[in-house]
Amino acid sequence: MAGGAKLWGGRFAGDTDPIMKKFNASIPFDQRMWDADIRGSKAYAKALEKAQLVSTKEMEQILTGMDQIFEEWSTGVFLIKPEDEDIHTANERRLKELIRAPAGKLHTGRSRNDQVVTDMRLWLRDAIKTLTDNSLQLISTMVERAAVEIDVLFPGYTHMQRAQPIRWSHWILSGAIAGTPFDIDRELLRKELGFDGISLNSMDATGQRDFIVEFLFWASLCLIHLSKMAEDLMLYSTKEFSFISLSDAYSTGSSLMPQKKNADSLELIRSKAGRVFGKCSGFMMTLKGLPSTYNKDLQEDKEAMFDCFDTVQAVLQVTTGVMSTLKINQSVMEAALSPDMLATDLAYYLVRKGVPFREAHGVSGKAVFAAESQHISLNQLTVEDLTAVSPLFGGDVSSVWDYRSSVEQYRAPGGTAKSSVAAQVEHLRIWLTKQTQ
Amino acid sequence: MAGGAKLWGGRFAGDTDPIMKKFNASIPFDQRMWDADIRGSKAYAKALEKAQLVSTKEMEQILTGMDQIFEEWSTGVFLIKPEDEDIHTANERRLKELIRAPAGKLHTGRSRNDQVVTDMRLWLRDAIKTLTDNSLQLISTMVERAAVEIDVLFPGYTHMQRAQPIRWSHWILSGAIAGTPFDIDRELLRKELGFDGISLNSMDATGQRDFIVEFLFWASLCLIHLSKMAEDLMLYSTKEFSFISLSDAYSTGSSLMPQKKNADSLELIRSKAGRVFGKCSGFMMTLKGLPSTYNKDLQEDKEAMFDCFDTVQAVLQVTTGVMSTLKINQSVMEAALSPDMLATDLAYYLVRKGVPFREAHGVSGKAVFAAESQHISLNQLTVEDLTAVSPLFGGDVSSVWDYRSSVEQYRAPGGTAKSSVAAQVEHLRIWLTKQTQ
Amino acid sequence: MAGGAKLWGGRFAGDTDPIMKKFNASIPFDQRMWDADIRGSKAYAKALEKAQLVSTKEMEQILTGMDQIFEEWSTGVFLIKPEDEDIHTANERRLKELIRAPAGKLHTGRSRNDQVVTDMRLWLRDAIKTLTDNSLQLISTMVERAAVEIDVLFPGYTHMQRAQPIRWSHWILSGAIAGTPFDIDRELLRKELGFDGISLNSMDATGQRDFIVEFLFWASLCLIHLSKMAEDLMLYSTKEFSFISLSDAYSTGSSLMPQKKNADSLELIRSKAGRVFGKCSGFMMTLKGLPSTYNKDLQEDKEAMFDCFDTVQAVLQVTTGVMSTLKINQSVMEAALSPDMLATDLAYYLVRKGVPFREAHGVSGKAVFAAESQHISLNQLTVEDLTAVSPLFGGDVSSVWDYRSSVEQYRAPGGTAKSSVAAQVEHLRIWLTKQTQ
Amino acid sequence: MAGGAKLWGGRFAGDTDPIMKKFNASIPFDQRMWDADIRGSKAYAKALEKAQLVSTKEMEQILTGMDQIFEEWSTGVFLIKPEDEDIHTANERRLKELIRAPAGKLHTGRSRNDQVVTDMRLWLRDAIKTLTDNSLQLISTMVERAAVEIDVLFPGYTHMQRAQPIRWSHWILSGAIAGTPFDIDRELLRKELGFDGISLNSMDATGQRDFIVEFLFWASLCLIHLSKMAEDLMLYSTKEFSFISLSDAYSTGSSLMPQKKNADSLELIRSKAGRVFGKCSGFMMTLKGLPSTYNKDLQEDKEAMFDCFDTVQAVLQVTTGVMSTLKINQSVMEAALSPDMLATDLAYYLVRKGVPFREAHGVSGKAVFAAESQHISLNQLTVEDLTAVSPLFGGDVSSVWDYRSSVEQYRAPGGTAKSSVAAQVEHLRIWLTKQTQ
Repeated sequence: MAGGAKLWGGRFAGDTDPIMKKFNASIPFDQRMWDADIRGSKAYAKALEKAQLVSTKEMEQILTGMDQIFEEWSTGVFLIKPEDEDIHTANERRLKELIRAPAGKLHTGRSRNDQVVTDMRLWLRDAIKTLTDNSLQLISTMVERAAVEIDVLFPGYTHMQRAQPIRWSHWILSGAIAGTPFDIDRELLRKELGFDGISLNSMDATGQRDFIVEFLFWASLCLIHLSKMAEDLMLYSTKEFSFISLSDAYSTGSSLMPQKKNADSLELIRSKAGRVFGKCSGFMMTLKGLPSTYNKDLQEDKEAMFDCFDTVQAVLQVTTGVMSTLKINQSVMEAALSPDMLATDLAYYLVRKGVPFREAHGVSGKAVFAAESQHISLNQLTVEDLTAVSPLFGGDVSSVWDYRSSVEQYRAPGGTAKSSVAAQVEHLRIWLTKQTQ
Repeated sequence: MAGGAKLWGGRFAGDTDPIMKKFNASIPFDQRMWDADIRGSKAYAKALEKAQLVSTKEMEQILTGMDQIFEEWSTGVFLIKPEDEDIHTANERRLKELIRAPAGKLHTGRSRNDQVVTDMRLWLRDAIKTLTDNSLQLISTMVERAAVEIDVLFPGYTHMQRAQPIRWSHWILSGAIAGTPFDIDRELLRKELGFDGISLNSMDATGQRDFIVEFLFWASLCLIHLSKMAEDLMLYSTKEFSFISLSDAYSTGSSLMPQKKNADSLELIRSKAGRVFGKCSGFMMTLKGLPSTYNKDLQEDKEAMFDCFDTVQAVLQVTTGVMSTLKINQSVMEAALSPDMLATDLAYYLVRKGVPFREAHGVSGKAVFAAESQHISLNQLTVEDLTAVSPLFGGDVSSVWDYRSSVEQYRAPGGTAKSSVAAQVEHLRIWLTKQTQ
Repeated sequence: MAGGAKLWGGRFAGDTDPIMKKFNASIPFDQRMWDADIRGSKAYAKALEKAQLVSTKEMEQILTGMDQIFEEWSTGVFLIKPEDEDIHTANERRLKELIRAPAGKLHTGRSRNDQVVTDMRLWLRDAIKTLTDNSLQLISTMVERAAVEIDVLFPGYTHMQRAQPIRWSHWILSGAIAGTPFDIDRELLRKELGFDGISLNSMDATGQRDFIVEFLFWASLCLIHLSKMAEDLMLYSTKEFSFISLSDAYSTGSSLMPQKKNADSLELIRSKAGRVFGKCSGFMMTLKGLPSTYNKDLQEDKEAMFDCFDTVQAVLQVTTGVMSTLKINQSVMEAALSPDMLATDLAYYLVRKGVPFREAHGVSGKAVFAAESQHISLNQLTVEDLTAVSPLFGGDVSSVWDYRSSVEQYRAPGGTAKSSVAAQVEHLRIWLTKQTQ
Repeated sequence: MAGGAKLWGGRFAGDTDPIMKKFNASIPFDQRMWDADIRGSKAYAKALEKAQLVSTKEMEQILTGMDQIFEEWSTGVFLIKPEDEDIHTANERRLKELIRAPAGKLHTGRSRNDQVVTDMRLWLRDAIKTLTDNSLQLISTMVERAAVEIDVLFPGYTHMQRAQPIRWSHWILSGAIAGTPFDIDRELLRKELGFDGISLNSMDATGQRDFIVEFLFWASLCLIHLSKMAEDLMLYSTKEFSFISLSDAYSTGSSLMPQKKNADSLELIRSKAGRVFGKCSGFMMTLKGLPSTYNKDLQEDKEAMFDCFDTVQAVLQVTTGVMSTLKINQSVMEAALSPDMLATDLAYYLVRKGVPFREAHGVSGKAVFAAESQHISLNQLTVEDLTAVSPLFGGDVSSVWDYRSSVEQYRAPGGTAKSSVAAQVEHLRIWLTKQTQ
């Protein structure tokens, strides 16, 4: 006979390898769902009574027992025992200690897999509510900041190069709006989790984890957005840009260099996109190629869910703190505007005189080159210099060299004119009010 | 003197490094958007006329020119020139050749970045419509198959071990239902792409690519579901299971082993989850930490979008083919049912006599052990054998040993009883009808 | 002036936001490096003395203080205080309490970043040694099992379809060999961590984390290999295959179905590939696009490192347990061999008579088809049946139908003949001996 | 009746679904291995002759035929036919057309899987050689640039904040050194691909793809390094930093804004890290949980390999171009140095007078604060100001305020002193010479 135990490994003597036991246990992390587990079991007890599988008295015993367990968890006196491999076992074991026989009936016709997935949906529904609140707080901070600082202009950048003058509030709201996809996904998840309907197929209900993957993906995309916002803010807080200063509450010093004030908060925000993406991509790999229905592989879902919740919550709170306390340096921001950023306006000047845009763009480019050749800035070109490039230039060209007028051109919805940015502020305020009603 | 060219690399002489030019060009893949680009430009020409930035006559010249370009692409005679770095440049260059001056006005107040992102949204909207059709065809195939084969029973597995008897149609529909999230996402995307509203913020509109990331994520999750279904089918088509046989149209032979018939189609389906996930995770990494507004990094969006579309479409079509042509081996499937799969029913027998489920589960487990000890199957235990385990067993226990009755217990919505599975079929048929109206 | 604090968030009053403090702190996880930190600091104290930056007496005070801190950690009495943000601060704070003034000199000319990266290298060097031991134990278990069970034949599968007869030991060793890349990477890392040389560039030394990424990647690839081995074993342990039975020590029951014995250990092993890959991919995303030198983003390195170590160690230990205790069902394995698996041998029979292989492959395929048409197995075809397909078949064809002879053909190195598999066993035994010397 | 074809899908009539055929075919991309396939087959023909499975004459026919096929591919006249599903089939089909019967013997005892994996190893060995050359060209460019510009100082940054003055060449070499891991991996892969040894186990040889995953991982890590270097260079080329100007050959203009000069090349370099990582992570997911030996899923290996090769090669070439042509603005770089960057030196001044570093760090911090309070720079504090902070300051403190002296302190290997940076240059030059011998 081939393959008897003991042949190859002396340490595997007893019933269950203790390493395997630890490998298998989920209670160190899933105990966070104690409340959801109790709520789920209480609801199930009522359903059992309705189906006449437990008597009214037994149901009441179960409900009372569960209320006591709730009390124990709330006050921190619930004692986890070594044989409690998960939160469900722990609560059931305790119920049995409290009410004896009827506890054994609680799980009639209900598999552990049903119970786990229901608890996760309940927990996640609450968790998403919390994240929504954190998120609304951040958006609100940004919207109010945008309202107060609407008169500050600074360079808009594309490709990390100065492009056109914009309002600082316009930038702030682009961050707040990038936060909006959150709402869409939240709605998706709320619908998913509203329990208004029932799963159409029992195999699908316990074997798929779409609601987890979608949460992890949303968390990843949300933090990728915040990593981008953090990158902008880090750039703006370099000595070279000096557009903003972070509050000391969100900065740290260097153990070596006494003069340093580091924007650690922003770097941590930026770094968390990778962390959360790792949870999402890791869990997606775990799912790949699994056979249908429940497989133990799915146990990876819980730590990922908890870690992403904690991480997203911390990032939202710290970002709210950063955004509410940073100081902007208005004079530096406006001094960073330079006449070459109005080269597009120079082209538009010609467009208004009937020149096709492609041609006007070329003419303006020649003016930029002429200024560079003379080592002067674009607005220092004389009307004669400009006429040499195109006879259509006239004395009224001087009206082009005004940053504030330039910005005010963009009055279309979503633009950077004061009225347009104010409309965005108003739109978001109304939206925020609706969310919190 | 610091850093003059030529010092370190003799090959970099001319204006633009040809390698850089190739590195920068997107026309080899973005030409697929030729139609979207033309539609977008025609709409923009009308808007320009309304804004009095082109005359009615110029608008008509542009529209006629664009129609001719459409004709050239449709008939395969459009000629891409070396200086056409992307589809937008190519169409504009051609328009200029055709109508001269007015072509130069088409891009007044419109950046390349606006144009690219609008074209992508148009293209993707059509692409999603196609994938929806492919997807509905697959779901329809599965639903009709489930309807025809509703009487076939076979083992349900959890942990790859036989669990309880289920209907084959129940399994089929769990796949079809796992396909449903598609619809939810499609609605999300349709709303996103419906152009009913406008972007709230101009910086956000050109600098974010949420609609691409969400499409890539949906594609990944969809193919992960199909990788799971493929894994089940591969298992079922092993010699050991022999539950199904794939059609020759979806199998290949071996160059070495004459007897082999490989389920290559299923392996390819399974493999594509990784490919599409790679596009999604790669693009998410590309986005991480980018500054706001447009950066050239975003150019990675297009190849990812096209490849995911092509891959998902091929997978959906091949899966439809596999599912519509595979043969099931009903007798083998039903022969795989074994009495130990009714151990839960044995416990339920006791539950109905008032035994708490946890206790009944223990009793049934002892019966399983007793049968194993005697090397007989569970239903071969005599009433005496069973009474030795629990006095509540009686002669009526024989009614437990009927697979079809067992299955018929699960009449709750989503269950495996014939009425329940038929209801799922009906539900999906109605849903399908709505989709295709 | 725009942007004073308090305007937008009343809760941000004090010096440092407590959420930011928690967000910033790493002591909950980096305390695992207490020993490495002490060793690093003791070495540095000696270097300071040599450079005459501390006196011999001061050095001795530092060393004695550090030894006491070592003692405190070892005996579990070291007390972490709220202001200890990381293990380095904690040890230094404690040193100051113990020896006062000289503690302040310990960090002359040494940045926190140097210290962190050195501690991580020291910790990881030990961790890799532990994983190497775990890994060797697993390989050793597999090699000895292969030696004992060398006479067991069973079907080799490609595409999850029976291909050719092979030795069970051949399969075991393919797993053990897939473990070999470990050694290559370990060598790479050992070289990396051997501290034989010095970093060539100080910016590079603190700002890159290649040694972490390489460890995470190795861990991912290692667990992907083990996920593949687990998949094979799960397949082999299905009722349908029944090739192996897992020990109860590595199985669990079902809360619902009394008859179930689930291979949870294998599912957990399979699932961890995703988890560890998630850490690797997440950290790679965090690194993407970071500016050079140290950024706080790098703090994500430590949790990833610890979690991967713990996970890989548990997986290696559980896999060793599973492999040392599983029972094989030799008769079932050999009964799964079927004559059609010798179709390649039938082709080789003709090749030996001078028929080109491609033609012989075709002839054998026709014989397979003939047998299938008559519903008999390949070896039941008469010589007449075979002669009808090719006149070269003769009575000696009966010699083909022997699984053991078929297997013995593959005597080339790496093949499945007994001598070849025995050589692989021997090769790995020698290799193992070298590793543990 | 269960599951007849035609019931559910009218379009699946013929032998093989044409979509499946296309899904299955790899010739559109694997034809790049035509040369490797020919070399592999010629070697195998010789082995067959030695084993007396083909005659000497037949071997010569095969070799001559293969030489002609080589000629056809080289001159671009090889014609792929519709039935050629991969490069191996195509070459074999053509060989049969050319030499008839003996072609059928070429694949005796050799499976398609063997052939594919051998061809890939051969192709990748050549590809790695090419990438090594590209990489050496980049490193050489950087080393020579560092040699020429060794006298340029500029701020070193940590956390994107000015930290200490460093040499520009020191920064360049930190990039060049981050490139060094390439060499380590190349050695690893060279060893892997050197074919000096043989695979130990035949199942392992065809079923694992470690050499591909390792290549994809190396490519990802390499491009992550280059994404970091690109990020630095983008920062340095912003208007605000203005440390460097990119050559026009690696910049592009804006279609809208005439003044813009975008560092597209750097953004493309940064973006490719995501692309290549996507290939790596996608293929790792494809591998997860696959059963052992060959599965068709492995077909994803080739496109990933080719795309990563092309991408890494283009990135290396463009980076070489960028690094060889960018201009540095020495005066701006040195003007960015500021006295607060010497705060660490100020602390060291006190350390040299016997003050513990932690205390000296505190004193220097107070000096920084004093200067900030008076709105002057650190070196404008009078000796009296400094004495107020610590009585140990004396007139000789003025010696601290010299950037060049500060930099010259770091003479330890890897430091930023001229001698140290020169030593790094020399070290890399010698290393480069060795690589190209």
